[in-house]
Amino acid sequence: MVDAAAFRRAARPPQSAVAALLADLAPRFGQRLSTAPAVREQHANTVTGQPNQPPDAVVYALSTAEVSDVVRLCAGHDVPVIPFGTGTSLEGHVNAPFGGVSIDLSGMDQLIAVHVEDLDCVVQPGLTRKRLNEQLRDTGLFFPIDPGADASIGGMASTRASGTNAVRYGTMRDVVLGLEVVGADGQVMRTGGRARKSSAGYDLTRLFVGAEGTLGVVTELTLKLAGQPEAVSAGVCPFPGVRAACDATIATIQSGLPVARIELLDAAQVAACNAYSKLALPVSPMLFVEFHGSAAGVAEQAERFGEIAAEFGGGPFDWATQAEARSRLWQARHDAYWAALALRPGAKAISTDVCVPISRLAECVEATEADIAETGLLAPIVGHVGDGNFHTLPLFDPDDAAEVARMKGFVGRLVERALAMGGTCTGEHGVGQGKARYLPQEFPPATMAAMARLKRAFDPQDIMNPGKIL
Amino acid sequence: MVDAAAFRRAARPPQSAVAALLADLAPRFGQRLSTAPAVREQHANTVTGQPNQPPDAVVYALSTAEVSDVVRLCAGHDVPVIPFGTGTSLEGHVNAPFGGVSIDLSGMDQLIAVHVEDLDCVVQPGLTRKRLNEQLRDTGLFFPIDPGADASIGGMASTRASGTNAVRYGTMRDVVLGLEVVGADGQVMRTGGRARKSSAGYDLTRLFVGAEGTLGVVTELTLKLAGQPEAVSAGVCPFPGVRAACDATIATIQSGLPVARIELLDAAQVAACNAYSKLALPVSPMLFVEFHGSAAGVAEQAERFGEIAAEFGGGPFDWATQAEARSRLWQARHDAYWAALALRPGAKAISTDVCVPISRLAECVEATEADIAETGLLAPIVGHVGDGNFHTLPLFDPDDAAEVARMKGFVGRLVERALAMGGTCTGEHGVGQGKARYLPQEFPPATMAAMARLKRAFDPQDIMNPGKIL
Repeated sequence: MVDAAAFRRAARPPQSAVAALLADLAPRFGQRLSTAPAVREQHANTVTGQPNQPPDAVVYALSTAEVSDVVRLCAGHDVPVIPFGTGTSLEGHVNAPFGGVSIDLSGMDQLIAVHVEDLDCVVQPGLTRKRLNEQLRDTGLFFPIDPGADASIGGMASTRASGTNAVRYGTMRDVVLGLEVVGADGQVMRTGGRARKSSAGYDLTRLFVGAEGTLGVVTELTLKLAGQPEAVSAGVCPFPGVRAACDATIATIQSGLPVARIELLDAAQVAACNAYSKLALPVSPMLFVEFHGSAAGVAEQAERFGEIAAEFGGGPFDWATQAEARSRLWQARHDAYWAALALRPGAKAISTDVCVPISRLAECVEATEADIAETGLLAPIVGHVGDGNFHTLPLFDPDDAAEVARMKGFVGRLVERALAMGGTCTGEHGVGQGKARYLPQEFPPATMAAMARLKRAFDPQDIMNPGKIL
Repeated sequence: MVDAAAFRRAARPPQSAVAALLADLAPRFGQRLSTAPAVREQHANTVTGQPNQPPDAVVYALSTAEVSDVVRLCAGHDVPVIPFGTGTSLEGHVNAPFGGVSIDLSGMDQLIAVHVEDLDCVVQPGLTRKRLNEQLRDTGLFFPIDPGADASIGGMASTRASGTNAVRYGTMRDVVLGLEVVGADGQVMRTGGRARKSSAGYDLTRLFVGAEGTLGVVTELTLKLAGQPEAVSAGVCPFPGVRAACDATIATIQSGLPVARIELLDAAQVAACNAYSKLALPVSPMLFVEFHGSAAGVAEQAERFGEIAAEFGGGPFDWATQAEARSRLWQARHDAYWAALALRPGAKAISTDVCVPISRLAECVEATEADIAETGLLAPIVGHVGDGNFHTLPLFDPDDAAEVARMKGFVGRLVERALAMGGTCTGEHGVGQGKARYLPQEFPPATMAAMARLKRAFDPQDIMNPGKIL
């Protein structure tokens, strides 16, 4: 079997190699090459509890050719390359544990083409999801994948992101039709295309989606879009406990009700959102629910959901079809992370992420609540429960070693609990640095060896975002 | 760049290696090892115009451990391994151009588990789609992927198959949640799982789906299922020409009407189906359409489709909700290949397969009809037009060299036309032997090199179904 450790990078390149690389990059990039400490630090992981590991330099690339040049030069000097979009990933994906060059792709932010008849578009990787949707507004189409942050599309593809709409519209795995990728040798690959389906050879598109920049740098994406719904109904529904809320979710999915969003907030998170987003929700476990369809359809679906919720002791289901009330609700949901952080000023938070078969969801969330209480953590729960995916947000003081250890123990038990129930160690955040230790618990040695073979085949020098996934 | 030719198999193994391998296999498999010419020939490609290239032997495997044993022994003797399900693939996937051992998986045909609450099941690869659906009947769930033949689920995953339901339910790419795969070294890998979504590492599941047995042998599959629709409406709608039928299809998809099936038959195919399946349809281009939903919903959708069809000069749209009439219609659609063959007794047919962005569909089908007329071929057209995917079935006398050349020229032009429109050389049949020459037209050299790197990483000896894809 292939042993990942045998070819994976173990140390930073010598300073002489970095200096020689910078001398090669400087005349090409001028002001778009920076070694300023603040810039380097800003391009390493800042959002979560992972320590900040800055790159040696940051290059602001403006074209595929420039990305190819940077990668080729880095390969020549055996120096790591770390692709950077908006820096909102949650598992340390943009950290540079072995130094190297961060390629900032935020300047490659063009919507290249929209094909309204085919419900697809072509974008550069630095375009963010909100800016894409602003530019699509008049086409009758929208891009449905919505992680909390206004992430870049390239980053979302690379972490196989999803969000609140995935229960209806799928994840990045489902909506990326094709890619342009710069490989570790600087060559430009094209995968997939604009046909809705294809059996033409190995599915390289799906291989690069979720590869976290460890096999190449995504420089262009062709995306499936969805039609803007004719009507939308949305609302909130309180429940006596998280089990009741989860059981109502399971029943909703199993009934075939085409829910567009179904999100759980536990009582702690509802309290946090009330404070942070100035809402006045009853402080109990809550489902945020949304339906997309015809005006009659979404009203019927909301009524039917209210009936299901009532069967599990939930309700009243307070729903409406006005855009303004809806936006406020979903903005609060997307701000859940910041709302949780505000519960304890100065604390850090880890946004955990597991996903289980939906039949095990209630059991998994309940056991996790018990663990939170027993461990004595402040850790609100939010979840895309229609997919069986949920997050906890344990708050901790990074300078309190005992508290950090308690938090880490909790995260490990959460992952083990999800795996024991047939789930996965990450539903949508990716592996990065934070989940790398859990991957060998999820997959047998032969599978881990296959992943290592893949990595070595595409990146024999281990220059592409080293220290992530494997 | 990696040159595929540099490590790909170029010749059959020496007879001494095959003899030594058979001596190793005989005591393990007894009567389940066969070298009878009829058995070998039956396990090579028989359905399409590809010449029959039999393996040296056939082994009937009954467990993952047995598959692992066979692969390990074949690797030890450097002899090819060809996985075999039902032999219904269309591009020579089960042919043995370099000899070797065909592993017949038809005895591994168990439905291992059904998880009704999670809408998934676990199956062995030799189970066929119709037998799976028979066993699911009482669960309220069904497996929606339906290529024409009663193919094995393992073969369908390996060719990334789809069929008439793909416009609504997706392809094998979308419904395979996880796999067990025996690699070229005999090791057993597990990929994916039962969670609805995951960002845990490289997407090996999607890598093996569509790999046509060239990276490993699929020995178990976890599949997403769909709820049996409460009501179904279906019917046929004649059109004045294929352009009108395609334009109505485009308008239907763009309108967001949730069509479950929308199939084109041109006039030649309708005539063939009338004769073969004893129908009395008007001989003109025709759409076969089906809707799944609530009783009120499917009636409303059928009405709405009738209105769209009328806008393009189509109709009357004759639809009903009775199961019996519907089954007869769809059986005729699935028998289209045999109906076409019956048009010219003794002839062979190639089932071609291209897919284009739906905005180019009408143009592509019309140009193909003109080419058929100009080339003087008998070649009915059928298509999963909701996906932009269509087939022609050119009939030819394999002993008439001029006719074979005309047919091959036509297929080449069809692929070039689809590629020029942003399409793919195969929407659902796979590459196999038949499309291998077109893959380098669809993808740039760097992409082909990446596929070769992948193949070499997983199968350095090139024993896994050699001579396919690359």
